[in-house]
Amino acid sequence: MNSSVLVVGSVAFDDVKTPFEERKNSLGGSAIFFSVAASHFTRVNLVGVAGNDYPHDAIKMLRDHNIDTQGLKITAGKTFRWGGTYHDDINIRDTRYTHLNVFADFKPIIPEEYRQSPFLFLGNIQPSLQLDVLDQLENPRFTALDTMNLWIETTRPDLIKVISRVDLLLINDSELNLLTGELGLLKGLEKVHEMGPKYVVIKKGEHGAYLSYMNSLFFVPAYPVYQPSDPTGAGDSFAGGFLGYLAGCDNINFRVMKKAIVYGSAMGAFAVEHFSVDGLVNLDRNKINARFSALRQMVLL
Amino acid sequence: MNSSVLVVGSVAFDDVKTPFEERKNSLGGSAIFFSVAASHFTRVNLVGVAGNDYPHDAIKMLRDHNIDTQGLKITAGKTFRWGGTYHDDINIRDTRYTHLNVFADFKPIIPEEYRQSPFLFLGNIQPSLQLDVLDQLENPRFTALDTMNLWIETTRPDLIKVISRVDLLLINDSELNLLTGELGLLKGLEKVHEMGPKYVVIKKGEHGAYLSYMNSLFFVPAYPVYQPSDPTGAGDSFAGGFLGYLAGCDNINFRVMKKAIVYGSAMGAFAVEHFSVDGLVNLDRNKINARFSALRQMVLL
Repeated sequence: MNSSVLVVGSVAFDDVKTPFEERKNSLGGSAIFFSVAASHFTRVNLVGVAGNDYPHDAIKMLRDHNIDTQGLKITAGKTFRWGGTYHDDINIRDTRYTHLNVFADFKPIIPEEYRQSPFLFLGNIQPSLQLDVLDQLENPRFTALDTMNLWIETTRPDLIKVISRVDLLLINDSELNLLTGELGLLKGLEKVHEMGPKYVVIKKGEHGAYLSYMNSLFFVPAYPVYQPSDPTGAGDSFAGGFLGYLAGCDNINFRVMKKAIVYGSAMGAFAVEHFSVDGLVNLDRNKINARFSALRQMVLL
Repeated sequence: MNSSVLVVGSVAFDDVKTPFEERKNSLGGSAIFFSVAASHFTRVNLVGVAGNDYPHDAIKMLRDHNIDTQGLKITAGKTFRWGGTYHDDINIRDTRYTHLNVFADFKPIIPEEYRQSPFLFLGNIQPSLQLDVLDQLENPRFTALDTMNLWIETTRPDLIKVISRVDLLLINDSELNLLTGELGLLKGLEKVHEMGPKYVVIKKGEHGAYLSYMNSLFFVPAYPVYQPSDPTGAGDSFAGGFLGYLAGCDNINFRVMKKAIVYGSAMGAFAVEHFSVDGLVNLDRNKINARFSALRQMVLL
């Protein structure tokens, strides 16, 4: 069975300051975090753009992780760069700068070989580009979408269109409020399901995540990390674990989705424990399964 | 078996404004919320003070709920009154006023008949008074303590003393940070266990709660309420469900404590659905057990 996941998203350098440490030129971007996390479960096809300053070692790391990089376009100019500073409460961060660089002209072209990818993750990019991607695919089995406040506020009509066409929407609680105008979780979920997606995941960071389907809610806690290092990319790593696990399943149903979100929570926690993708690269399925079990143990009587 | 719970705490009138409604002269106070919640599981002995303006109907309601009120002292003067306003985000509130009235001179005297109560809940009052209560009891089986930022900041030595003498401490995440100086959950828990309590509950409101014991963590989500009305007293109702369930158990161990915290979460949710104690009075064990099951269902694969 072809079980690959296609991801379209950003490829970046991150300059991250935390209360404990500062790191420059770290690998970042939604497509990178997602790919490395998902690669522990399935084959990944990556579509994104980087500048000609993007290191050869990074591409080698991706390939070593069973990630197909023919969709990663290297173009003249600089790679997208983001600088952020985390507060003492590491759940709060300020963006110091965003230099789009070559990402400003990103027009995702899906290689012929990727067009039959059964699973798709639309990372957090402009909704019009996400629509372009959907139009290039041949009947994907399962599609998932990430977005952010900026697109809810500035390109709502396009966002509503793309939301109506996906199976799963992943958002956080404040985005749910902004998107639906509802402060309450259940009322917000009602409205967002009416927009189209059969499945909705509400990401709450250190407070865990909900999976909503029909009138049922499943909840997974976050795995409490002893010393969080860098929350950058946790949401995309969560999505990578989720979609990666799903891609290996014969049937997509609520039961399988529940297990997928637990794997998502596990991968999000691995990401937070180290800077950049460092917590994701040196993993194996034993470590991942142990964390899955620990998350289950936390809620079992 | 004598399975009663003794609670010592405040008895109040609450004047509550929410974005939807305003209610004056509602029954409130930690001892009242706790008692009514716990009464669905066990016999409750209530120690507190009210003014001679405290309504006869309220005392009748308590007695109808199997709550012994001989420890509720009615004294000349006005009952403690608290006024609070909730924001559109109902998890945030401002205190408009606190009139201690007769509560200012509260010196808890434990009636002779209560001194062998096997279970004790020390509601959020001055730590020196909590110590007085402990000194009046004859070898209780299980003791639990609630506190707040004010006592951590102003009477830390007394608070540390009382913490060292109880089996269970219930606090929220910001209180854990303030008490231990640690921002991380696991580091904070290490420090607070070193202070004495074998069990620690971290209350996170709408984000659920952790139960910590030895090096194990159990997590219970909050039950998502469709239309939250009034979060006042949710924490004390949570504690009432927790201790009330525990009082009916032959042995106290981690497994039983896990079930107790799920009952706590259920009772907290009932409290939030209506103003004052309205969500707690018209309950029966069938409704409570149904909510317990719903909370379990939310985390089961």
